[in-house]
Amino acid sequence: VGEFELLEKIRRRLPPDGRRIVLGSGDDAAVTVPGGATATSVDAIVEGVHFSREQASLSQIGARALATALSDLAAMGADPGEAYAVLTVPPDLDEEQCLELLDGMVTIAAETGTTIAGGDLTRGAALALAVTVVGHAERPESLVGRAGGRPGDLLAITGEIGGAAAGLLTLERPETAAGIAAETAARLRSRLLEPTPRLAAGAALARAGATAMIDLSDGLGGDAGRLAEAGGTGVSIDAARLPIAAGVEEVAAAAGIDPVQLAVSGGEDYELLAALPPERLEEAVRAVADSGIELTPVGELDGSGAVEIRLPGGGLLEPRGFDQLD
Amino acid sequence: VGEFELLEKIRRRLPPDGRRIVLGSGDDAAVTVPGGATATSVDAIVEGVHFSREQASLSQIGARALATALSDLAAMGADPGEAYAVLTVPPDLDEEQCLELLDGMVTIAAETGTTIAGGDLTRGAALALAVTVVGHAERPESLVGRAGGRPGDLLAITGEIGGAAAGLLTLERPETAAGIAAETAARLRSRLLEPTPRLAAGAALARAGATAMIDLSDGLGGDAGRLAEAGGTGVSIDAARLPIAAGVEEVAAAAGIDPVQLAVSGGEDYELLAALPPERLEEAVRAVADSGIELTPVGELDGSGAVEIRLPGGGLLEPRGFDQLD
Repeated sequence: VGEFELLEKIRRRLPPDGRRIVLGSGDDAAVTVPGGATATSVDAIVEGVHFSREQASLSQIGARALATALSDLAAMGADPGEAYAVLTVPPDLDEEQCLELLDGMVTIAAETGTTIAGGDLTRGAALALAVTVVGHAERPESLVGRAGGRPGDLLAITGEIGGAAAGLLTLERPETAAGIAAETAARLRSRLLEPTPRLAAGAALARAGATAMIDLSDGLGGDAGRLAEAGGTGVSIDAARLPIAAGVEEVAAAAGIDPVQLAVSGGEDYELLAALPPERLEEAVRAVADSGIELTPVGELDGSGAVEIRLPGGGLLEPRGFDQLD
Repeated sequence: VGEFELLEKIRRRLPPDGRRIVLGSGDDAAVTVPGGATATSVDAIVEGVHFSREQASLSQIGARALATALSDLAAMGADPGEAYAVLTVPPDLDEEQCLELLDGMVTIAAETGTTIAGGDLTRGAALALAVTVVGHAERPESLVGRAGGRPGDLLAITGEIGGAAAGLLTLERPETAAGIAAETAARLRSRLLEPTPRLAAGAALARAGATAMIDLSDGLGGDAGRLAEAGGTGVSIDAARLPIAAGVEEVAAAAGIDPVQLAVSGGEDYELLAALPPERLEEAVRAVADSGIELTPVGELDGSGAVEIRLPGGGLLEPRGFDQLD
């Protein structure tokens, strides 16, 4: 791969620069005129650790790298602005394949109104992508961090959880998909391989008064714990109310795993977990519905300092690492 | 390496947040309130491609990753603000070593007034660092891109060139250092292993009316060509005026390489090449001198569209890739 030639080809494939860009890709640095406040996040994925070219297409890998980075902006309620990508190219990836990977990023950029404003290209042993995303807001107070939740706030989840973990099970152990329709299995795998950053829902939640938000990348158990720790609160979640994706129960059963445990311990759904004052819940549900997503109340923050996931029978579920499930 | 524990240890080592930071490392995204314009650049280094742990200490590797990223901001005349780092940790790097690498970054951050505002940590086969830096300026017009040079502008270089390339030669072929003092050899190696971003000089050049700037990461020949191409001009450089670092001549001679060729083809000096209207040169020389660096006029932009490096004898020097020198 000739770095400068490939960079030039990449530049020609990028959509036009967004409105905040003064000087785009190709100079020493990209120049932007931000609004009042920016939210910046960095996310890296490495082949063999976060993805495999046997399970995902190059276009899916590129799309996923940008989508999961943007998910952090969704969790702030920020308006997506610019992305900067570092692509590490292994010896067995040719120029055409680099561009295929980029096309996946460009698709997500176009869908979300993100400008790919710069990046770097390097050789390396393993395919890797590091993406920095910058989001914008009128004021820093418009952005929602993790730490603002207070005891008494309700906890709500966008969309459905467990899908990505179940999708991974069907990829690694195809027999677990025997009890579900092919279409359902495809939908579960798509949750894993083609995640959607909940940008509109995150912005709606911020406007509706969310006091704290986090995206579910590591699993509800762990991420709810981080929300509680950041705000100095406890978390109580009612397992019976969790919005578990269709097909998760069957796949989990076929794998001998409790479906609630799978949904709570499996990450990568990239849904949002938000804390809301009870009097704002109704408004938030309506606002999130406008973006085509359901918002489901699943519990509340309390003063206990503990993360408790209450099972219908009365016991507590102990979230485990996804890799310790079976 | 336990990711969350190590991230917490890293966070405890970071210096206090800079004045633009509203919400620092540890949330979904860092929140800043930028000034009028931002310059953003991304730079990645990978073990075995850009550095070797046999030649550089971990602290030097961390420092160099941030310093070379900041060099792109220097080439814009931007005021350094925030840095975001992705560290890929190979199996043979333990927690203590990760922190040593970080300490190198923290040293450069402190020296330059940069806040390390976020990052990501991942496992991977090879040690790699990707750094995103954000610089600030009051107005986008205060920042200097590559494309603004005009025929008749003078070209000037900060500091000295050739040092990093000669330093690399002394590391790879120790016999080439036989003709110079140990102290001189150490200084050449330090140019390679401990580069300094010319932030104050870059800001001074921007204020003094530089029409275009680029940092010398790939070698004067290639980088001058990029400046000319971006502005649609030609470049004429007088080889006799090049500020070649002490010791480069001896090391090049010992390696059987022409010293001017080495200085022009070897990159990684991270000096700045600036185009200036002739009437602003004197002011620029004085302003750069205030930052303790010499500014040397070495040629000019013209309308030829070609990059010409004129040798004292009257011929032209053909810049080559550093890896094609011997």
